[in-house]
Amino acid sequence: MNRNALIEQIRKKESFLCVGLDTLTEKIPACMQANADPVFAFNKEIIDATAQYSIAFKPNLAFYESNGLEGWQSLEKTVKYIRKKYPDIFIIADAKRGDIGNTSAMYAKAFFETLDFDALTIAPYMGKDSVVPFLQYKGKWVILLALTSNPGAFDFQFTEEAASKTRLFEKVINAANSWAGPDSMMYVVGATKSDYIAEVRRLAPENFLLVPGVGAQGGNLQETAKFGMNKHCGLIVNSSRGIIYADSTEKFAEMAAQKAKEIQAEMKTLLHQYSALF
Amino acid sequence: MNRNALIEQIRKKESFLCVGLDTLTEKIPACMQANADPVFAFNKEIIDATAQYSIAFKPNLAFYESNGLEGWQSLEKTVKYIRKKYPDIFIIADAKRGDIGNTSAMYAKAFFETLDFDALTIAPYMGKDSVVPFLQYKGKWVILLALTSNPGAFDFQFTEEAASKTRLFEKVINAANSWAGPDSMMYVVGATKSDYIAEVRRLAPENFLLVPGVGAQGGNLQETAKFGMNKHCGLIVNSSRGIIYADSTEKFAEMAAQKAKEIQAEMKTLLHQYSALF
Repeated sequence: MNRNALIEQIRKKESFLCVGLDTLTEKIPACMQANADPVFAFNKEIIDATAQYSIAFKPNLAFYESNGLEGWQSLEKTVKYIRKKYPDIFIIADAKRGDIGNTSAMYAKAFFETLDFDALTIAPYMGKDSVVPFLQYKGKWVILLALTSNPGAFDFQFTEEAASKTRLFEKVINAANSWAGPDSMMYVVGATKSDYIAEVRRLAPENFLLVPGVGAQGGNLQETAKFGMNKHCGLIVNSSRGIIYADSTEKFAEMAAQKAKEIQAEMKTLLHQYSALF
Repeated sequence: MNRNALIEQIRKKESFLCVGLDTLTEKIPACMQANADPVFAFNKEIIDATAQYSIAFKPNLAFYESNGLEGWQSLEKTVKYIRKKYPDIFIIADAKRGDIGNTSAMYAKAFFETLDFDALTIAPYMGKDSVVPFLQYKGKWVILLALTSNPGAFDFQFTEEAASKTRLFEKVINAANSWAGPDSMMYVVGATKSDYIAEVRRLAPENFLLVPGVGAQGGNLQETAKFGMNKHCGLIVNSSRGIIYADSTEKFAEMAAQKAKEIQAEMKTLLHQYSALF
């Protein structure tokens, strides 16, 4: 999906919500456990319940890989289901991949050909040639880790370089800006660090930012929009646990829809306040 | 597998060779392509041909994921085959994972429970809480990226911190040394950077170092041993393409064995020269 199509979807739905499909078998409501593939059955309900309020879905690969072969099957079915029923929706593989060039090329094949994802999260530690193979696919996106939402973000991402006086996350963004433009490169910035969202926005004025950490991780949507939104929105804000596990009874899908709808309503206000889409 | 068992295997086989199973469907010899699962059939032959000369096998996840569900199946079969037939061999998932705590815990489950790997390569960008979940498994190992073998290693890994005067790869090792000792933490150091192997060895005198890049990537085994070996060996040196694609005819397994044997012979000399195992 290209940038214009993504922006158009945000404008149309008045939302920049991404629903994170971090589906844990044990947390699937009892009423769904009898299905042959409870993970896919649960995802399907969540997708149908929230698609009208969201512009992206983001399966988290770890949750699928932990179920081995069956998990990979649930993942394939989930991606196909979204692609077929909601062709306008952006699908992100939250996979944090990245390796030497020939290996990254194989990951690109895995996520952009074998599975038809639109975008993939990538860890920057191995540098340019670990990222470039993902950029060879027209209409596909790299979402590079810049400043993450977890406590460990402070271990290395703030390392201040002697020569340039920049911190590692800034150095990563500056370098990656020279590898690709805002039509194929996004950055991950944790919403738990809203002070820094403005800094990242200055370094990457046009790029989309994928913001996890709103909800269970404690991030704030108002602050994120205030400091992070650009005229085309430029934000994809993820919520996983707060939506998909909103309820554990047979009303789980209804409650997930309710949660997504509430967030979308808040997003609508923020889009009208800070973007130039309307 | 614990550290003593690993060292004992190195002593017994007089080898510190890891065979990288970067199996690409298109590169499998024609004579194997008729198999229902050519990747597994090829791996099986390679494993049987090289097991006596090597102490570890290292499937590279990207190559399996690129084949989707079938690839995951080939991977599962490969790991089970090694585990059953060669219980002494160390099995590394070259997966470069790492995410927020709850997600890393799911990756740990995927690789240490669902699949019975001994060790997993991890990218350090997200810091301590992205690594710690992998350390909860007794007898399992984290192999943390420190200094990689690719050109992009120079993009961020050498970033010199103003305050500490250390470079990022040093900071990563120093931090990780405080998270776990040499019984469960190894570091990745590219053999294409033998100048730096000595530096890493000073920072991590007791840890095993996983050294990719010998062979196709241009690293040098003599230099690696000279600067990297400690009294318990402390090295696992990987070769992938140089062994598994040594030949593309029906003699491929024989030639892979030949290549592995040559490397093992060189390793034997180096072990007697630099380690204190004999």
